[in-house]
Amino acid sequence: MPDAVDLIRAKRDGDRLSPADIGWLLDAYTAGAVADEQMSALLMAIYFRGLDPEELRAWTRAMISSGERLDLSGLNAPTVDKHSTGGVGDKVSLILGPLVASCGAAVPQLSGRGLGFTGGTLDKLESIPGWRASLSNADIVRVLADVGCVICAAGAGLAPADRRLYALRDVTGTVESIPLIASSIMSKKIAEGTGSLVLDVKVGTGAFMRDLASARQLAETMVELGNAHGVRTCALLTRMDTPLGRAVGNAVEVTESVATLLGEGPADLVEVTLALAAEMLALAGIDADPAAALVNGSAFERYRAMVIAQGGDPAAELPSAEHTEFVRAEASGWLRVLNAGAVGVAAWRLGAGRARKEDPVSAAAGIICRAKPGDQVTAGEPVLELRSDDSARFDHALEALAGAIEIAPEPPRAVPLIIDRIS
Amino acid sequence: MPDAVDLIRAKRDGDRLSPADIGWLLDAYTAGAVADEQMSALLMAIYFRGLDPEELRAWTRAMISSGERLDLSGLNAPTVDKHSTGGVGDKVSLILGPLVASCGAAVPQLSGRGLGFTGGTLDKLESIPGWRASLSNADIVRVLADVGCVICAAGAGLAPADRRLYALRDVTGTVESIPLIASSIMSKKIAEGTGSLVLDVKVGTGAFMRDLASARQLAETMVELGNAHGVRTCALLTRMDTPLGRAVGNAVEVTESVATLLGEGPADLVEVTLALAAEMLALAGIDADPAAALVNGSAFERYRAMVIAQGGDPAAELPSAEHTEFVRAEASGWLRVLNAGAVGVAAWRLGAGRARKEDPVSAAAGIICRAKPGDQVTAGEPVLELRSDDSARFDHALEALAGAIEIAPEPPRAVPLIIDRIS
Repeated sequence: MPDAVDLIRAKRDGDRLSPADIGWLLDAYTAGAVADEQMSALLMAIYFRGLDPEELRAWTRAMISSGERLDLSGLNAPTVDKHSTGGVGDKVSLILGPLVASCGAAVPQLSGRGLGFTGGTLDKLESIPGWRASLSNADIVRVLADVGCVICAAGAGLAPADRRLYALRDVTGTVESIPLIASSIMSKKIAEGTGSLVLDVKVGTGAFMRDLASARQLAETMVELGNAHGVRTCALLTRMDTPLGRAVGNAVEVTESVATLLGEGPADLVEVTLALAAEMLALAGIDADPAAALVNGSAFERYRAMVIAQGGDPAAELPSAEHTEFVRAEASGWLRVLNAGAVGVAAWRLGAGRARKEDPVSAAAGIICRAKPGDQVTAGEPVLELRSDDSARFDHALEALAGAIEIAPEPPRAVPLIIDRIS
Repeated sequence: MPDAVDLIRAKRDGDRLSPADIGWLLDAYTAGAVADEQMSALLMAIYFRGLDPEELRAWTRAMISSGERLDLSGLNAPTVDKHSTGGVGDKVSLILGPLVASCGAAVPQLSGRGLGFTGGTLDKLESIPGWRASLSNADIVRVLADVGCVICAAGAGLAPADRRLYALRDVTGTVESIPLIASSIMSKKIAEGTGSLVLDVKVGTGAFMRDLASARQLAETMVELGNAHGVRTCALLTRMDTPLGRAVGNAVEVTESVATLLGEGPADLVEVTLALAAEMLALAGIDADPAAALVNGSAFERYRAMVIAQGGDPAAELPSAEHTEFVRAEASGWLRVLNAGAVGVAAWRLGAGRARKEDPVSAAAGIICRAKPGDQVTAGEPVLELRSDDSARFDHALEALAGAIEIAPEPPRAVPLIIDRIS
């Protein structure tokens, strides 16, 4: 039987761990024979030494086999999902599931909650009165069969080892490791049972990955991992230097998503959504025009059906905030920079996000970007509209926005939103 | 208040931790506010990133101030101690304390037990019927005042944070870090209250440090740390490629120590002991000839008095093993190599050492080197005499000795035992 200390030292010293060793380690950790303090030392050694492709496949396989795997093979449609590494104002999931479902695929989007300054898809949908994030496996399959798309919480039965590892990484400074991030994301997506997967790996000031090289490495690692486990996987690298769309928060992002599903979405959000939809449909083998589904009402119809199937009232009024505050342009000119990270932190401080996973979020809090980079502004005109239930939160939110806005005398050069495609 | 995760990430990313941060971390760890899994992740980050001199001083200071500090200022003699990083057959402490005490210094040797293949001083002395390793602080001071030397267990009150950290490092693969080793050793020695300290940093196949560069770095780190905390400190780097003296075990090492105290010691053991004694006396400001004390009986007299003061009977017969086995020369010629590490592991497997700290050790088990490197041997002549209470242990011990003995047609070149002096 392997010895935990020997395996920690081997990884520490740059040796490879065998698939059997990795399987033993994660099983023993799940069973309590490897202690948290041993696993955290190993995670830190992995932070420094990495995992090679074979180690990473074994690590991911062990996390998947720590729990159940959903069986979606009984559906009459090809399954395809999307995962985003998270960005500010990134409400693409809310639009993309119904959109791609309306084109004929089944889209099982098992999601997490937001932690930190990028919001969570479930938090956003929970601003709809009655809407439920928790579904049984049977309900997931039923909603998929009936509506073609579902957005719900990943159950505790999927990759439970990852759940425990993630909590450990969070308190031990070992989150920021590409193989650990990749295996955490991919173990859940593979266990979810999707046949294909498109990854949206965001890069920029409002993304987890700040530099292109790291984002590319993460994308390549995840694509390889998905394909190795039989899930057709590709990735888009997309820019996240400024919020996607104009709304950042929970209810405000639902409202913007509905507008987009009705063909009235902001250009950047529509562009990223359609690019991802095209990749999903290609992997699913479906020849359809997703742009048409945004204007002919079919995507919105799927969204309505999905919300209703999960107990929500799509016609209900969404919560709105009591208090409003503005950040105004300090000069006239063209908005050159609107820092996504700063806007995300500000929205989080207004109540849209949570510091600890047990914290509640405010449905109404958030930020509306009244101008976006490339827009012409006049001194004194509002650039950001801050909303909160609690006016005492504005000062702290405004602090986060210091230096977040840059206005230039000339229009900025346009930069492409879609940076690259990895397959 | 600092945040543990921020500090772990800072060290992980190569940033310096402030003395205040380090003090907070170790206090919070002692108080239970920083968890074992966080400390082990930090220790692994320190393994990779190190601690700079200021960080290391703060780390060591925090470990010292986690407990009590012995006050030896009431003694009428200068205090000086020795610490060895551990070697096979290294019984120098048993001889050196009485020897240096007989020259006029007070020698407070607070020691640990053996773990792994290098034996522990306390385990060796416990083979003397009646001898007690555990003394109260008052007893330590009394024995020092009466006899001039004491060898006993470091009480639980000295650097308790180090005790907990060491146990954590042992199970998390974070033992082999020079700053962590240095602070562990030095925190206990500084808390012990000695005025001066000589370090014997061993290098070679039977030492913790296999290469000269690491041994030198450890020695320099400890010397700097001792002096920074007001303990006059110097170090000798000594060779540990073959056992020191001829006896490896517990009772057998006591017997060899007594012979050495009576002027009948093997040359290598006498050379290292006298070199360390000269350093200790120089630091203590005492002008005396330690070689004379080994032949005129005064060192032995101190040894007798010390054993009696700690409940032991210096005239009692020591335990002897029931079973004996020999490893014989496979050829005639000169013994060129007798691998210290292999002999240490073999003695350990015979019962002289322990695998876990709660295991008992055998007083009688051990190995006698009937020949040492440089000796001429005839094929078939015993090179090693293995002793154990349990003949079933011989096979496993013999396995450790495969390839440990090399015989050459010509005598080997003599290598100096004392490699360097660091002050």
